[in-house]
Amino acid sequence: KEQDRKKLRVVFDFDRWQRHRSSSRYLRHMTGLFTSRTLKWMGAPLVCTLSVATAVGIYYTAAEMGMVPDIPDIKTNAVFGLTSFALANLLVLTTNTAYQRFDEARKMWGLIVNRSRDMTRQGLAYIPEDQPELQEMFCRWVVAYSRSLMCHLRAGENLERELLGKLPESELRALLTATHRPNFTNQVIAQILKRADLPGAEVKPWDSTANVKASAFVRMDEHLTVFADVTGGCERILRTPVPLMYSRHTSRMLTIWLSFLPFSLWDACHWWTVPVTGLVAYLLLGIKEIGLTVEEPFSILPLEKICDTIESNVWELHSTHSAQGAAASRR
Amino acid sequence: KEQDRKKLRVVFDFDRWQRHRSSSRYLRHMTGLFTSRTLKWMGAPLVCTLSVATAVGIYYTAAEMGMVPDIPDIKTNAVFGLTSFALANLLVLTTNTAYQRFDEARKMWGLIVNRSRDMTRQGLAYIPEDQPELQEMFCRWVVAYSRSLMCHLRAGENLERELLGKLPESELRALLTATHRPNFTNQVIAQILKRADLPGAEVKPWDSTANVKASAFVRMDEHLTVFADVTGGCERILRTPVPLMYSRHTSRMLTIWLSFLPFSLWDACHWWTVPVTGLVAYLLLGIKEIGLTVEEPFSILPLEKICDTIESNVWELHSTHSAQGAAASRR
Amino acid sequence: KEQDRKKLRVVFDFDRWQRHRSSSRYLRHMTGLFTSRTLKWMGAPLVCTLSVATAVGIYYTAAEMGMVPDIPDIKTNAVFGLTSFALANLLVLTTNTAYQRFDEARKMWGLIVNRSRDMTRQGLAYIPEDQPELQEMFCRWVVAYSRSLMCHLRAGENLERELLGKLPESELRALLTATHRPNFTNQVIAQILKRADLPGAEVKPWDSTANVKASAFVRMDEHLTVFADVTGGCERILRTPVPLMYSRHTSRMLTIWLSFLPFSLWDACHWWTVPVTGLVAYLLLGIKEIGLTVEEPFSILPLEKICDTIESNVWELHSTHSAQGAAASRR
Amino acid sequence: KEQDRKKLRVVFDFDRWQRHRSSSRYLRHMTGLFTSRTLKWMGAPLVCTLSVATAVGIYYTAAEMGMVPDIPDIKTNAVFGLTSFALANLLVLTTNTAYQRFDEARKMWGLIVNRSRDMTRQGLAYIPEDQPELQEMFCRWVVAYSRSLMCHLRAGENLERELLGKLPESELRALLTATHRPNFTNQVIAQILKRADLPGAEVKPWDSTANVKASAFVRMDEHLTVFADVTGGCERILRTPVPLMYSRHTSRMLTIWLSFLPFSLWDACHWWTVPVTGLVAYLLLGIKEIGLTVEEPFSILPLEKICDTIESNVWELHSTHSAQGAAASRR
Amino acid sequence: KEQDRKKLRVVFDFDRWQRHRSSSRYLRHMTGLFTSRTLKWMGAPLVCTLSVATAVGIYYTAAEMGMVPDIPDIKTNAVFGLTSFALANLLVLTTNTAYQRFDEARKMWGLIVNRSRDMTRQGLAYIPEDQPELQEMFCRWVVAYSRSLMCHLRAGENLERELLGKLPESELRALLTATHRPNFTNQVIAQILKRADLPGAEVKPWDSTANVKASAFVRMDEHLTVFADVTGGCERILRTPVPLMYSRHTSRMLTIWLSFLPFSLWDACHWWTVPVTGLVAYLLLGIKEIGLTVEEPFSILPLEKICDTIESNVWELHSTHSAQGAAASRR
Repeated sequence: KEQDRKKLRVVFDFDRWQRHRSSSRYLRHMTGLFTSRTLKWMGAPLVCTLSVATAVGIYYTAAEMGMVPDIPDIKTNAVFGLTSFALANLLVLTTNTAYQRFDEARKMWGLIVNRSRDMTRQGLAYIPEDQPELQEMFCRWVVAYSRSLMCHLRAGENLERELLGKLPESELRALLTATHRPNFTNQVIAQILKRADLPGAEVKPWDSTANVKASAFVRMDEHLTVFADVTGGCERILRTPVPLMYSRHTSRMLTIWLSFLPFSLWDACHWWTVPVTGLVAYLLLGIKEIGLTVEEPFSILPLEKICDTIESNVWELHSTHSAQGAAASRR
Repeated sequence: KEQDRKKLRVVFDFDRWQRHRSSSRYLRHMTGLFTSRTLKWMGAPLVCTLSVATAVGIYYTAAEMGMVPDIPDIKTNAVFGLTSFALANLLVLTTNTAYQRFDEARKMWGLIVNRSRDMTRQGLAYIPEDQPELQEMFCRWVVAYSRSLMCHLRAGENLERELLGKLPESELRALLTATHRPNFTNQVIAQILKRADLPGAEVKPWDSTANVKASAFVRMDEHLTVFADVTGGCERILRTPVPLMYSRHTSRMLTIWLSFLPFSLWDACHWWTVPVTGLVAYLLLGIKEIGLTVEEPFSILPLEKICDTIESNVWELHSTHSAQGAAASRR
Repeated sequence: KEQDRKKLRVVFDFDRWQRHRSSSRYLRHMTGLFTSRTLKWMGAPLVCTLSVATAVGIYYTAAEMGMVPDIPDIKTNAVFGLTSFALANLLVLTTNTAYQRFDEARKMWGLIVNRSRDMTRQGLAYIPEDQPELQEMFCRWVVAYSRSLMCHLRAGENLERELLGKLPESELRALLTATHRPNFTNQVIAQILKRADLPGAEVKPWDSTANVKASAFVRMDEHLTVFADVTGGCERILRTPVPLMYSRHTSRMLTIWLSFLPFSLWDACHWWTVPVTGLVAYLLLGIKEIGLTVEEPFSILPLEKICDTIESNVWELHSTHSAQGAAASRR
Repeated sequence: KEQDRKKLRVVFDFDRWQRHRSSSRYLRHMTGLFTSRTLKWMGAPLVCTLSVATAVGIYYTAAEMGMVPDIPDIKTNAVFGLTSFALANLLVLTTNTAYQRFDEARKMWGLIVNRSRDMTRQGLAYIPEDQPELQEMFCRWVVAYSRSLMCHLRAGENLERELLGKLPESELRALLTATHRPNFTNQVIAQILKRADLPGAEVKPWDSTANVKASAFVRMDEHLTVFADVTGGCERILRTPVPLMYSRHTSRMLTIWLSFLPFSLWDACHWWTVPVTGLVAYLLLGIKEIGLTVEEPFSILPLEKICDTIESNVWELHSTHSAQGAAASRR
Repeated sequence: KEQDRKKLRVVFDFDRWQRHRSSSRYLRHMTGLFTSRTLKWMGAPLVCTLSVATAVGIYYTAAEMGMVPDIPDIKTNAVFGLTSFALANLLVLTTNTAYQRFDEARKMWGLIVNRSRDMTRQGLAYIPEDQPELQEMFCRWVVAYSRSLMCHLRAGENLERELLGKLPESELRALLTATHRPNFTNQVIAQILKRADLPGAEVKPWDSTANVKASAFVRMDEHLTVFADVTGGCERILRTPVPLMYSRHTSRMLTIWLSFLPFSLWDACHWWTVPVTGLVAYLLLGIKEIGLTVEEPFSILPLEKICDTIESNVWELHSTHSAQGAAASRR
């Protein structure tokens, strides 16, 4: 099940959107029904519900044949009608909170993309041109930040493998020995910025760009605060689930509701009770199951793709910058 | 279908609002019912639903005539009542998430309009007056940014055709060879700002406007960060759909629900079952269809109109500025 | 109808709130039912619905009298129950999006009030005291901004009449010839700030307030960005309706739903079908009608009152400032 | 009724929360049912509804006894079912918008608390130590701001009584003669800041804290902008109700719905119709009544308690500061 | 009950998420049903509801045996259907507002984590290296802030025990004597920053990093404003419950609704009425109970774990910084 979650990491492009919108999707979705992950994941409770329904059917049939005492006839339809709004309330909460968490996590990772780009643009502009190795180190650690955070938020990732060949051996060792690696990355970037500023310490008083430099420094520091906020925000989502009482109350109500459903349906549906109960269970348990899947969004978001995007963006900015620098020095 | 989406790109003015609000809209909408795009787009699943309903009708009629075995009579009305809240939950999610994405995309493009104006105003004020060609280049690349982003977000747009005659040949070539064009545009604007600042490098120490200049630079840099955030935000909407599990679960439930509906209706409606099923399917499939249409908002937002607005605003600010400059020099 | 919208522009005070909360409101609202604007505006579709209901009644009566063939008896109650959640979904969307747009527009105009005040406070403090005519011009154009935006957002307003006597003839002409007047106002304010700063250009290096001045300039520039954002935000609301497909789908479903309602009611209500259909139509069409009314909020918000507030606030700040200046110079 | 609203101004502490959560609350709430304010406030419409129900009962009884013609038997149950979703829609809107307004107002007042503290902390740090009387004046006017705003937002408050002994006679007079008192308070604070800065005007060029001072000034100016935004935001809530059309449509539908309810219930409940109608009316009218109560939040929020908190916080910060100053000078 | 709340303070890790998502949760939740806290906490009202149901059952049975007069047969099913949407409205409000408060509180504490880290990073960088004891004092008080706020927001916490050994005796005494301890902590941090800046007062005019230092000071001051906002925001949540009228109206309606439910069920369910009423009560009272539990979030959030995280993060940053400083001085 945990492995299957990886298959949910999709990135859409124009073609996928077109396919997503095409009328053929109903056919596609229906044919994929029995192999769908949702069905697979909720197999156990679904089988239980069907067993209960079958048992109820057998008892009623036996009672009709006089083999067992009659079940007193209770018309519980009204009860199901009266409680469905409360169940709806709980399922809406499940759906909404899960989606909000997914959306918030995705937005925070989008922010990492944006700010990595912006920070690289600024860093390349303000780290003095005579320190190309510092510029490169800066780019390299901006890339390392997103990889560190990804490995921090997911079980079973290996930061060493992710960064092999992307950071020099010594830097990688230092990073791997840190307790809180995204924080460590942030500290390294801050130190690079501090070191980069040193050569500018003896500028002449009439250098009007000193103010600009100070401001650029502040703006990059602000981006570091954004990184710190995103790190903390992702940890918050990972450490704090939706209050468990809601989750438990929903589970219990769903179980009770579905267990008593066959009693309510037998009179109207007889042996059709079993498939009908199965369908209702599939719908309701499915909503809960998807909610649970989406509640912890980091293992279903395509973070590795986002990290790749950041990496290629950063190095493209670096190469464009280097090319311009070379052109400028030739002039 | 993809071509039809272009017709959804509307821009309202006072007259359209008045027509939108007029009582005659009900008539207008009803007469347009059978030629509407929504109906056209959901033709296939609608025909399927009607076929199922017809097949059910034929079987029931045949059974009544004794030609085929009876379908056991199951009263599924209760089941439909019991599951409608769950279907409502899923449709509400579809509608809300789709509208939120549409709204967010529109707001981000609104931000591009606002900040393009504001940035042009500031750029014209702080790029030294003795560099008119730099001022013009600045305006031209602010315009290029919105066009680049539009082509980045839509399939089938041609950035070369969009910017032909708006950028000089050499600049256009450079832009077209870049991998990530909106990012490249941002980099060019940042370079213009950096180049513009150079002449101010030797201001005298008593020039109190040096601080103002540094601040103006910072503020324009902040606008570039906004551009980077909008670029990333639009990409996020384009790359990440609402979790597909929700979409699939909704499709499946709708299909199952509508397939079993004729069984539930036959007793009450007989052959009227077919049109009634059609109407219910039209309503429910329509909500899902519109949700899917709006989920990817860039191909239905009038981005080309927004780009035109930006272009005319930027050049109007430029011409007002030039006129004032000419007036000032005459004095 | 468009004229009537003006009457919706209310401003509450303590007395109106007390009346709004008093128990007598039910009586007041009921007696005003038949003269209410909502009823008037939705007269046409309401009459149509009643006509359909009457026609259905006549046919059924004729059928009972054997004059026309019987309508096959279909029990559509279930269908109405099954589709009501979908109609609810669409009406909730109508209501929520309309209210959100109204609320957003009101908040943006509230922001204009706040920032006009704040900007005037700062402008009076930082435009040198020896340029009283520049201070006055500044106040005058802050006032002109809100009026220009109001006329920009509403059909049938006359900016010339609004600003006659508030701007000198020449300035008014210049404003009226501009294509985008709120933008022009912003440009003028920016120029005043720029001109105001000039005398300070030769401050001595030990003037510690130079930094404060630069900051004050930046903060006023930020307020101009807020103005640009509000201008753009209001235009966005004016130019972009809620996706029309939703509006059309809702109209169509409402029409179909209400047209078939009499068939469903006849058995239970006979000739009472007509008033009952009328009541249901009144309720449902009313919600849609109010949604449409509120969707374009600028013609129903009391913008002229808000502009008056801004004007009196700005001039009160100016007169307090002048009085203090006079007092200070006397000392 | 307006007096009763004052009793809704509660401030919770640990004990109140414990009582709020205790199981005994059901008993407490039920015993307080008949003395509850909600019931009292909606007495008139409740009595009306009960009268209608009684009249319907009398007529039906008379009809059964043959004294008056029969009311044609119409089964309106379906109609009530069909319209309940629309009524739900309107009641949800009432509840949500009212609560949002309450929450927004509370958050804005929370912001006043936070920023009053923060501003006092900064003001005490940056107003020169040799001007203790200016520091005290600063604290006094920060306290005056919240009191002025409270009296501005509530009918029947007396600013003079509130500030007697807290502002010197002359300052209090000046404040009371201002048209817009919260704005006047802001202007005074801005002037204090400006005056406080003057002694620093001749700092030496090597004073590296000049930048800090300028920044501190800017940050306090930002807090003044927050005060201006809160003032405007509270006025917005006070001046602009939720669009009245919604409120009226809800009132009308509730009245019609409750008036026809007895006809629908008589067959099933006979004379029990009266109490049952009463109960339904109590539930529905109650939701509307609470919504109206909360819609204008300033008279039910404990603003005087919040003002007291601000006052004690500001003076505690002042006395701590003074004690430290004394300790520092002794050293 | 208040002690039990502590057990709700959970922190999730990868294993807990996997268990949370596993199919076995339904079994786990059902077996824990009778020992669950929710059930325990709502024991009293549940027993009352069951007693009422039993009493109704006894009376009906007695009436059937002719011992007491018949209860007139009223078909209240319709009434329950008609009011369920209003009850749903109130329960949705309870659930949503409670969750929003929980979420807001958690986000504010997440902000404390992020900003404590960021502030420590900046503080260590800008407090001069020759004042290691000031750096340490700074770290110590950042840690003290979160502990002070936790004790401020929870009944029964002991700040002295929390900070014993973490602050020197004299500092701890000073903190404990303050009236508003989180505010006091903020004031101490501000003083440390002010004191730290003093040695830099005589920097040479060509020191281009003076601007950076001033900016760093401002940025740390901004973090103090965030701390002040969080302090105020948490106090707001603690002092202001959701308007009590909503809570009371919900309690009353639930009580009435559940008390009359047995009358409605007896005909259909006879003695099964008692367990069925119990189940419905469990579902509805449970939603309300969880809402009340979550409404005051500070006693169920794992604040002590968050404080531990902050403490370990701060000291890890400090030790990394010290190690680098030692390495630098060795070079």
